[in-house]
Amino acid sequence: MSAAANRTTGPDHLWSVDEHLEDILATVRPLEPIELQLLDAQGCVLVDDVMVPVSLPPFDNSSMDGYAVRVADVAGASEEFPAVLTVIGDVAAGSADLLRVGPGQAARIMTGAPLPPGAETVVPVEWTDGGLGGGPVSGMRARSLSPEGASGEVRVHRPAEARAHVRAKGSDVRAGDRALEAGTVLGPPQIGLLAAIGRGTVRVRPRPRVVVVSTGSELVQPDEDLGGGQIYDSNSFALTAAARDAGAIAYRVGAVADNAETLRSTIEDQLVRADLMVTSGGVSVGAYDVVKEALSSIGDEDGAGGGVEFRKLAMQPGKPQGFGSIGPDHTPLLALPGNPVSSYVSFELFVRPVIRTLMGLKDVHRPRARAVLEADKALPSPAGRRQFLRGTYRDGTVTPVGGAASHLVAALAQADALIVVPEEETSLEPGTEVEVVLLG
Amino acid sequence: MSAAANRTTGPDHLWSVDEHLEDILATVRPLEPIELQLLDAQGCVLVDDVMVPVSLPPFDNSSMDGYAVRVADVAGASEEFPAVLTVIGDVAAGSADLLRVGPGQAARIMTGAPLPPGAETVVPVEWTDGGLGGGPVSGMRARSLSPEGASGEVRVHRPAEARAHVRAKGSDVRAGDRALEAGTVLGPPQIGLLAAIGRGTVRVRPRPRVVVVSTGSELVQPDEDLGGGQIYDSNSFALTAAARDAGAIAYRVGAVADNAETLRSTIEDQLVRADLMVTSGGVSVGAYDVVKEALSSIGDEDGAGGGVEFRKLAMQPGKPQGFGSIGPDHTPLLALPGNPVSSYVSFELFVRPVIRTLMGLKDVHRPRARAVLEADKALPSPAGRRQFLRGTYRDGTVTPVGGAASHLVAALAQADALIVVPEEETSLEPGTEVEVVLLG
Repeated sequence: MSAAANRTTGPDHLWSVDEHLEDILATVRPLEPIELQLLDAQGCVLVDDVMVPVSLPPFDNSSMDGYAVRVADVAGASEEFPAVLTVIGDVAAGSADLLRVGPGQAARIMTGAPLPPGAETVVPVEWTDGGLGGGPVSGMRARSLSPEGASGEVRVHRPAEARAHVRAKGSDVRAGDRALEAGTVLGPPQIGLLAAIGRGTVRVRPRPRVVVVSTGSELVQPDEDLGGGQIYDSNSFALTAAARDAGAIAYRVGAVADNAETLRSTIEDQLVRADLMVTSGGVSVGAYDVVKEALSSIGDEDGAGGGVEFRKLAMQPGKPQGFGSIGPDHTPLLALPGNPVSSYVSFELFVRPVIRTLMGLKDVHRPRARAVLEADKALPSPAGRRQFLRGTYRDGTVTPVGGAASHLVAALAQADALIVVPEEETSLEPGTEVEVVLLG
Repeated sequence: MSAAANRTTGPDHLWSVDEHLEDILATVRPLEPIELQLLDAQGCVLVDDVMVPVSLPPFDNSSMDGYAVRVADVAGASEEFPAVLTVIGDVAAGSADLLRVGPGQAARIMTGAPLPPGAETVVPVEWTDGGLGGGPVSGMRARSLSPEGASGEVRVHRPAEARAHVRAKGSDVRAGDRALEAGTVLGPPQIGLLAAIGRGTVRVRPRPRVVVVSTGSELVQPDEDLGGGQIYDSNSFALTAAARDAGAIAYRVGAVADNAETLRSTIEDQLVRADLMVTSGGVSVGAYDVVKEALSSIGDEDGAGGGVEFRKLAMQPGKPQGFGSIGPDHTPLLALPGNPVSSYVSFELFVRPVIRTLMGLKDVHRPRARAVLEADKALPSPAGRRQFLRGTYRDGTVTPVGGAASHLVAALAQADALIVVPEEETSLEPGTEVEVVLLG
């Protein structure tokens, strides 16, 4: 049941930031899992525990380039009194048909190659004459250039204990162990482990596909000419980039003019590739607020969670917000306000957690920290509204950049944190400890 | 001049971790910049300062839905004694041909719409009767449903100062200002700002294309059957994922058998799409170490920086390493050791900084922290080698996971930090403060 169902709401209810977020997150469910190729699953969340089908390593193998020998044959060996052994051939990594090492014999062995039957230990090549009849060598000659290294005699200069330089079968993981736990986020080492146990595909929650639509008849695409009363569309770019940054596959539709029919058909068109729809603009109290107008007709009012509700939040910037679901699949939709700073701040607070919830991540929010406010003078803040100012955070202090107005995109581009001013605060003194949202 | 040129080196020189890294970074240069579409430039580094061609906002505009009026006409207005004005029409966002607001007149205006000539201030719709003749309203009716709202009379209940709720032209940025500084990393707000000033493309250093090749005749693709002596290829997956994680566009070639001719032709083939080549395996002292064998022929020994040099590092894991450049374009190549933990640790220490240097980033290394070692017993470490153990970091403490052996991929997948044990240390007591590399 959504949080909204537990309280009296209506068009005049002023929602707190927390109520709105709680209502959204109570509605959104992680996406259904799918089987993906390993590298397509990078950054995704594992749905099931993954068990180990075959022990790693699958067989005893050498951790060094050297000679596989019997322990007794090299007991007491020294450079002055070396053990002289007959080299019966090479055991390379990947060898399947293995030589048997008998008394007085040695098999030349490479790192990762199986310990051949009869051999009990490995002496590194640096402890031998490498078959050259001189002092200790620093390595082997390439097989392709010096095939004779796989035969003849080798002088071993040091003894070795049983199973020295041998990696035992199962010493990494054993068949039946749990390799990775459900809920694990797949980074490079986890992908490496899955490959190592032979998994070419893995069942994860996919990255959500997010469609971003900005609205406004005043919007012009960058690189075109501005006419009177026009500005460039920036929200569709910033929000698409932010959706990707949160982990989504994001599609930028660009700007739609303030015409309800056009917007409705655009959204209906796009639904087929959307796990989440995000709009900007058209949600306030004006006579041309087209998102409000258009979405009342798309919402499936009969279905569970159907319909989009437009709200006022006790928040600055970001007072007008819409949230609900649309279309036959009840695709979640967040309708953000159109001012660039409002839409970006709303994205960070509300859309990012939705994307990360759809991915099945546990950690859906930006990290927060406490910081001391550095400012020349007190910062005014509207009573009863939670304010999110832009700032730069360094070593436990935060400095505001730009003012509170929601059109200041240049200052936003210099910020790396949001300064949270509580609802009851009307003036924030320099030196006050504040909460900050780290945008990093 | 490379660091290597300043010291006596040779096949037996044991390189420190820092010397090897310094030598690599002294050689690698940021990629040449290219012009990219905004959203293709996400995460990339700006090459030039970007200046503002047109002030933002480009014109005075309303920050509220309301009425554009003259100050004198609403002076002293109250709910009891409202100012009654004639509504001459709508000014929507994007309007080019503007009404002139005369004495006793009001233009209904939407957020973002240009302040029309004659108007001096904006009263929000909530301060009026919205033209309905009653008390204060909470918003406008949609134009498409109630076109009469753009005419008739409006009662204004509160006075407004000059230029109230007006965003002045240039109050965000002014033409000629610097919007973004060279070296800025383009995240969502920076992309939003570039769009806002009309930039559809931007000049940045591109993401490097990294080709990952693993080598070893023992390697089998995941999901295939393992034969005797075989293991699954995991390095090509982990390194490809790690290269992407560092910011690269990464191509996984997969495993090549230990045959110098095959490896050579594979690398020559792949060079066309590589800004950086990374191999794993075949760099040690064995008779089948094919990377060493193959790359001596590809290196352009005559060109500056040509040729690949194979080295021993005072490091565990990761002792054998190769570095140099290959092919006609002197493409940098790092040849990593083949043990999975060795190759991953080597990637984090050496390849990640190369990728980030190619991108032009200033911050090329993983962050480091100090942590207190939590362990049951002292950890042995080889004298004269810098050891990188795997650990989990929490709130200033680090706990080792798994042992020091370089085949322990299961433990690596549980780790989120590398514990750095200095060269001179042979035993690390519990409670010691250590340096850790945070793997994020």
